[in-house]
Amino acid sequence: MDRHIQEAGRAALAADSDALAARLRDSLGTDVVLTGPETARYCSDWHGDVHSGAVAVLRPRDTAEVAACMRAAVALGLDVVPQGGNTGLVLGATPDAPAAQVVISLERMTRIRRIDADDFSAVVEAGAVLESFKDQVAQAGLFFPLALGAQGSCQIGGNVSTNAGGVNVLRYGMTRDLVLGLEVVLPDGTVFDGLSTLRKDNRGLDLKQLFIGAEGTLGIITAVSVKLLPRPEHVATALLALDSLPDAIELYRRARRQCCDLMSAFEFMPPLALTLAQEAIPDLQIPIQADHPAYVLMEISGSGLVDIDDLMARFLELAMEEGLVVDGVVAQSHAQAQNLWLIREGMNEGQAKRGKHLRTDVSVPLSKLADFVAEAEAAIAQDMPAAVCVSYGHVGDGNVHLNVLPDFAQGPDSLDAQILKSKKIVNAVLDRFQGSISAEHGIGRLKKPDFTARLPETRRRLLLAIKAAIDPEGVMNPGCQIDRT
Amino acid sequence: MDRHIQEAGRAALAADSDALAARLRDSLGTDVVLTGPETARYCSDWHGDVHSGAVAVLRPRDTAEVAACMRAAVALGLDVVPQGGNTGLVLGATPDAPAAQVVISLERMTRIRRIDADDFSAVVEAGAVLESFKDQVAQAGLFFPLALGAQGSCQIGGNVSTNAGGVNVLRYGMTRDLVLGLEVVLPDGTVFDGLSTLRKDNRGLDLKQLFIGAEGTLGIITAVSVKLLPRPEHVATALLALDSLPDAIELYRRARRQCCDLMSAFEFMPPLALTLAQEAIPDLQIPIQADHPAYVLMEISGSGLVDIDDLMARFLELAMEEGLVVDGVVAQSHAQAQNLWLIREGMNEGQAKRGKHLRTDVSVPLSKLADFVAEAEAAIAQDMPAAVCVSYGHVGDGNVHLNVLPDFAQGPDSLDAQILKSKKIVNAVLDRFQGSISAEHGIGRLKKPDFTARLPETRRRLLLAIKAAIDPEGVMNPGCQIDRT
Repeated sequence: MDRHIQEAGRAALAADSDALAARLRDSLGTDVVLTGPETARYCSDWHGDVHSGAVAVLRPRDTAEVAACMRAAVALGLDVVPQGGNTGLVLGATPDAPAAQVVISLERMTRIRRIDADDFSAVVEAGAVLESFKDQVAQAGLFFPLALGAQGSCQIGGNVSTNAGGVNVLRYGMTRDLVLGLEVVLPDGTVFDGLSTLRKDNRGLDLKQLFIGAEGTLGIITAVSVKLLPRPEHVATALLALDSLPDAIELYRRARRQCCDLMSAFEFMPPLALTLAQEAIPDLQIPIQADHPAYVLMEISGSGLVDIDDLMARFLELAMEEGLVVDGVVAQSHAQAQNLWLIREGMNEGQAKRGKHLRTDVSVPLSKLADFVAEAEAAIAQDMPAAVCVSYGHVGDGNVHLNVLPDFAQGPDSLDAQILKSKKIVNAVLDRFQGSISAEHGIGRLKKPDFTARLPETRRRLLLAIKAAIDPEGVMNPGCQIDRT
Repeated sequence: MDRHIQEAGRAALAADSDALAARLRDSLGTDVVLTGPETARYCSDWHGDVHSGAVAVLRPRDTAEVAACMRAAVALGLDVVPQGGNTGLVLGATPDAPAAQVVISLERMTRIRRIDADDFSAVVEAGAVLESFKDQVAQAGLFFPLALGAQGSCQIGGNVSTNAGGVNVLRYGMTRDLVLGLEVVLPDGTVFDGLSTLRKDNRGLDLKQLFIGAEGTLGIITAVSVKLLPRPEHVATALLALDSLPDAIELYRRARRQCCDLMSAFEFMPPLALTLAQEAIPDLQIPIQADHPAYVLMEISGSGLVDIDDLMARFLELAMEEGLVVDGVVAQSHAQAQNLWLIREGMNEGQAKRGKHLRTDVSVPLSKLADFVAEAEAAIAQDMPAAVCVSYGHVGDGNVHLNVLPDFAQGPDSLDAQILKSKKIVNAVLDRFQGSISAEHGIGRLKKPDFTARLPETRRRLLLAIKAAIDPEGVMNPGCQIDRT
């Protein structure tokens, strides 16, 4: 394109955007409408891979203001990208049409409307940061089990919109399983008031299910009612060394039976994880030899009368007697337990420090997990011998992050091609195992091509019918999850 | 209407029905199409309150035949009423337009397609009887936790369509929480193939959620994949006497904390329950004095290394020391435990034996349950002093069956009016507590008027939009849940 025409186009676009932002300010108030350089962080993704823009970032303070923002944007012909803590990994909250979209950030709606200890429930606004919410719930002697790496920044509305997973899913389920009710601003600006805390309510279709995992494509979640549980007063954490991934899976099966539903985490890691963790956190103490083929970070927890430490000790004694666990360390204090979890977190940072790489988030049936990892790693080894696989994850859910570190010696220019190649190799194996390309991260914009390429026609038709039924004008987060044509 | 015209109309209708049934036989085969007296049991409800009819009852043997039945019915302008074990309590599977509807019964689709012990999952066809399925799962050393009175007759497809509850919900959730995937024949005869067993799969909207609890208004569920659990080898069952319902709720809260998520049932009963049980089962042993104000049937269960009996003993010791439990008996054998559960089941039969009465299935937040029951019972006592309330239920879920036995002395002709009056009284109190008129039974045809009278406009609009999106011709179970206009 001719450079002068391009610049004229940009100027016109900017002028249009300025005029639109001015009209948004008129109807919503200057305090709600953010423009200019301050919007940059809302228009970039968590990894910093994508930098986009928007006509404005709207920051409503309550549900009525969210509805007003929705109506104002639609009245101006603008589309809406809802955003929580912006910690998503698939560009679900990153605008992709700067001149045609506004971001609606929920970050000001942080109020906990109610914690009802006698009802084991809470009602919380969408913008509350997960960790703050969990802390306040803990002060009431209760427990909200959702636990993930981003919990210091992610917001509960985003967790629900993406049906977030995390390390406690095997016991407490995905976010979907923790939600009792939702308040949602619909594309036409009306409010769906479904903030019940009823445990059982079979009055027709369960409409809230539609918005959980929709990644903001059907409406904006403004508040959530959730289940709470008794706070686990006793937690036993162990780092175990094993001979193989199949042994880890066998250990998981035994733990389910012998630990009686009290297991709250069971994370698999390869030996390289310990190295990567130490690369990220040089003074990290790793209280186990790093030369075993497989590691498991396991947690049992509970409140009340069950002796959790004794349960862990007896479980491990049996497993070691049978040779299933070859070495292990049980945390003797909360600090030691936190240190073990630091290995799990440091491993992720360590991968990032090595450089750009393939991150996956796949799932297969638990009975096929070991075969899938073996075949995918073998396929990578064959076609990309200098690449390094880092396969770790939530074994109990059949969810593995089978990451591939490319051959960095080939230079930075080769990385994108290597990553694409490794993704194709992994996905080809995954397809044979009928696995999911997104176990917990969602589809967003990043995984849309891989998602739609695998979308059966009946499913596609249903998805489009639902989208058209709830958002007939297509104003909600266009570009995310599925294209309307 | 003139009697002759009426009879002529009936004859024409019958002739039409015969012709339509003949055409169904032509396209589906005689073996699939049932007409005449044999159809009566499919066209009456469980309680025997309603006797209706249908052009035919179709009994397909596999998914392809279900699809063929659907297409054949729609091609003839007939609507479709899907039916499982026909044990529902709200007329969700009972046809209401004999000349315009066919029943599609899933009863021949009983196959268990797969039990995968290593994956803790199974795939089962919709017509499998719940109890048979549970038995086969148990033979594989595993456990499917759905447990309800009708389990000897109800079918798994119906359980999913109605999102059945039951006595184990407090630990394992509703049927929705046990479903991993669905296969559904859609109104246009295409098949939604969603029979995955993946634990975590965040690929866009979770379409299966739409069909769970839809009571057959969006499609016909033909197969289900479900979660399985380790079989609880140890079960401790206790019948406890308490001073009040508030004490029972306090005991539940403590049990959640002290028994560490291992409680699998907590059923509340009034003293009258013991009398009613003995009226139904005269030789029933009741190993506790029947003169306490409140009773709880409680179960703790688990597999593996936790000593369940010891846990129950220590929990009860504490509760009795503090005076929360005033008397109690712990089953010393499986037979004794079954006997305790017989009281719970006999209580229901005993109510039926007394005569026609109001059955409710309501829920309120747990923190309001005691107040709700007290106020509703007081309101009945004031306006219907000779009526008798029987309030029992799943305390842990906030779900109470607040039944009202009318004053039978007023004679059989007064019963319907008394029942209607008592329902209005209970519902008026329920509305003040923002409770649900259907905690677990669904809406069907029976509760549709009470449901629609309380349906907020935004919710109604969403329900109709979904219905129009999935079933644009309105052929699926018309008359059930919601009217399209």
